[in-house]
Amino acid sequence: MQHLIRTADFSVEEIIELFKDAKEFKNMKSNKILDGKIIVTLFFENSTRTRSAFEIAAKRLGAEVVSLDVGTSSRSKGETIFDTVANINAMKPDAIIMRHSDCGLPGTLVEHVDCPIINAGDGKHAHPTQALLDLYTIREHFNDDIEGKKIAIVGDVRTSRVAGSNRRLLPRFGMEVVFVAPDCFKAEHNEHKQYDNIREIIDEVDVVMSLRTQLERHNEIFFESIQEYANDYCITSETFGNRDILLLHPGPVNRNVDISDEMLKDPRNKILEQVTNGVAVRMAILKKLVK
Amino acid sequence: MQHLIRTADFSVEEIIELFKDAKEFKNMKSNKILDGKIIVTLFFENSTRTRSAFEIAAKRLGAEVVSLDVGTSSRSKGETIFDTVANINAMKPDAIIMRHSDCGLPGTLVEHVDCPIINAGDGKHAHPTQALLDLYTIREHFNDDIEGKKIAIVGDVRTSRVAGSNRRLLPRFGMEVVFVAPDCFKAEHNEHKQYDNIREIIDEVDVVMSLRTQLERHNEIFFESIQEYANDYCITSETFGNRDILLLHPGPVNRNVDISDEMLKDPRNKILEQVTNGVAVRMAILKKLVK
Amino acid sequence: MQHLIRTADFSVEEIIELFKDAKEFKNMKSNKILDGKIIVTLFFENSTRTRSAFEIAAKRLGAEVVSLDVGTSSRSKGETIFDTVANINAMKPDAIIMRHSDCGLPGTLVEHVDCPIINAGDGKHAHPTQALLDLYTIREHFNDDIEGKKIAIVGDVRTSRVAGSNRRLLPRFGMEVVFVAPDCFKAEHNEHKQYDNIREIIDEVDVVMSLRTQLERHNEIFFESIQEYANDYCITSETFGNRDILLLHPGPVNRNVDISDEMLKDPRNKILEQVTNGVAVRMAILKKLVK
Repeated sequence: MQHLIRTADFSVEEIIELFKDAKEFKNMKSNKILDGKIIVTLFFENSTRTRSAFEIAAKRLGAEVVSLDVGTSSRSKGETIFDTVANINAMKPDAIIMRHSDCGLPGTLVEHVDCPIINAGDGKHAHPTQALLDLYTIREHFNDDIEGKKIAIVGDVRTSRVAGSNRRLLPRFGMEVVFVAPDCFKAEHNEHKQYDNIREIIDEVDVVMSLRTQLERHNEIFFESIQEYANDYCITSETFGNRDILLLHPGPVNRNVDISDEMLKDPRNKILEQVTNGVAVRMAILKKLVK
Repeated sequence: MQHLIRTADFSVEEIIELFKDAKEFKNMKSNKILDGKIIVTLFFENSTRTRSAFEIAAKRLGAEVVSLDVGTSSRSKGETIFDTVANINAMKPDAIIMRHSDCGLPGTLVEHVDCPIINAGDGKHAHPTQALLDLYTIREHFNDDIEGKKIAIVGDVRTSRVAGSNRRLLPRFGMEVVFVAPDCFKAEHNEHKQYDNIREIIDEVDVVMSLRTQLERHNEIFFESIQEYANDYCITSETFGNRDILLLHPGPVNRNVDISDEMLKDPRNKILEQVTNGVAVRMAILKKLVK
Repeated sequence: MQHLIRTADFSVEEIIELFKDAKEFKNMKSNKILDGKIIVTLFFENSTRTRSAFEIAAKRLGAEVVSLDVGTSSRSKGETIFDTVANINAMKPDAIIMRHSDCGLPGTLVEHVDCPIINAGDGKHAHPTQALLDLYTIREHFNDDIEGKKIAIVGDVRTSRVAGSNRRLLPRFGMEVVFVAPDCFKAEHNEHKQYDNIREIIDEVDVVMSLRTQLERHNEIFFESIQEYANDYCITSETFGNRDILLLHPGPVNRNVDISDEMLKDPRNKILEQVTNGVAVRMAILKKLVK
């Protein structure tokens, strides 16, 4: 039985096969591939976006989805997460999709279940389905020829699980990953080049991935105002000029902090295409893992 | 592609066709007409009743429903409603059913999506599926012969979207609409006769539609007590006498404020019939709009 | 039409037939027995565990589930539970599964609906599906030969609806039920022998059912500390020794209060087996009641 805890769980060949399925699923026609399967979503952190994408993907494949509202009941009764998961597992679902604020938790639970676990984000660690849909979107844009392409990931790369999964995945497909961040957000102990400002590197990159600034967590600590952060890190028309660069963002975007209103209307941004690809790639992942 | 934002979106002929389908669906047998379709419900205002009726209608047609809990995630992350809807649209649902407290919002969003939007209530503006089920119930009661029938809509007609949709829809089918309300609840700038008291008009009407008094909003401002309002506007056995009048209410009823306990047991009230018709009419609407 | 309000609603023969179906459903293969049926869950008390088990059972049978979030909308609008249920019934579901804190409420509602009501727990009164899955688990363990077997139910038997349903059901299949509880938790007015301590009776019993201590309700009132309760009533390896006893618990377990960590790893506890059986037995119940 195979799980998806981190992108390394899939080989390059498996990912290329996965993307063939995703390409077919992009027409968004429903099918019955997972008819009769029951998929549990177990989100300990709220996420309308990711949970909906998984739910739609599962339902497009004919599966049934049971969304467990784990914030309100078992936990308030003092149950440990291991007991909660053991109980869900005893109900014999065909897969468990989970998000949790603790790094590594979904990986730990693999030994305790009889069905695939799909990690939908664990703390600062990983968000493998996001990185896979990002890779899919980049490959689609460049007609699968991404060897040697360079991507700048901009923003809070230190705590971003999206950055974490992408910096591990994209180099396996020949891409060079660099980071652009203020010192307070720079990654520690990592092999990637880090820049202070997007202008230093903009002429060399093929892709810019802007990250969501966790306004609610950081700005009051590190910046006098969110505008001070935006002055240096918001992606604007001026940043891009007339360069042919692909702009990505995992969403939701902080408008005029992460990316300007103008760039959100620019055809070089493929953010909504990422959302569509997110459903197609997750359909392919569910097809691959759920038996 | 057709949307349902206001009752005027459907012609008289379309509505009559719609009601033929609704009549067949009233046996509440499930079918597979929308098998493989995914319908998103997006309720920014809570409504167990309307949301459940839509969900049951969609499932009776074989569609899958994804209910987005929009109160808790995206919005708390500061996303605009336009971005939320653009993202949902990028997941390629087959229809979006939405309720929002802002008048006109669903209509504005029509240009931003690739699937039908069904307005399940927008502020004080419109509640077209409610008016359609009300019309269906009235026509059913009078064997489709409603030309020249008179309806009194009683209560807070100024802010009621149910009154708003009905006063536009019913006259297109030959009905005369009058309002009964205290001055503080009377409609502004409208062509309908308005009365202070149901007794002035009761002998002339064929239908009484009592509205839900928004106790939580108004009574403390305009009335010394809710009993003071009820004395004049609650529909009682005394109001109806032995007249042959059809009594409707969009629910939930404030017992003994909108309608007396006694009248809620009276066969002249068809409030639960409205609920059943609400599922059948919504099935017909989904069949019509979702391709 | 048949409901399941209390275990007495099913005869011994009906239960034995039910268990034949449950045994077949235990392979957890999905089917289409309830294809096109719509089942409403109406939980006025939160329960991730029981609600999920019902939802998975219904979906394994091909039914659609509509979960009404009754805490947030209708009730906040001041509607009575009778009106809420009358409205749901008017939407013509094929069954209503409900949990409520008021003893006897589901039974009272039976006259007001056109579909089966399944009681998923009503106050201190009954939890019939739990007792049926407990019986199923006991019979499975003893190869259906339970005549004369003795079970000790340990803990807050006074307020436990699980104890209430089991003490009525198990004797109908020839089992002797005794209670073990501190005085403050002993049952009033009942025919079962009651002991102060599990050690008094452990050598005579074939099954021990530990109940969940409602820590949040009781311990501050009756015990100086929860440890004081646990010293006497927690089931430990020492309690069981090397006796061949079946250990059950309705979940969620308070670790080291109801049952020790060590006993939770012991093969004599079949708590997770109860969870699996809970899905299979509920599938059989839904198949029996929903037409």
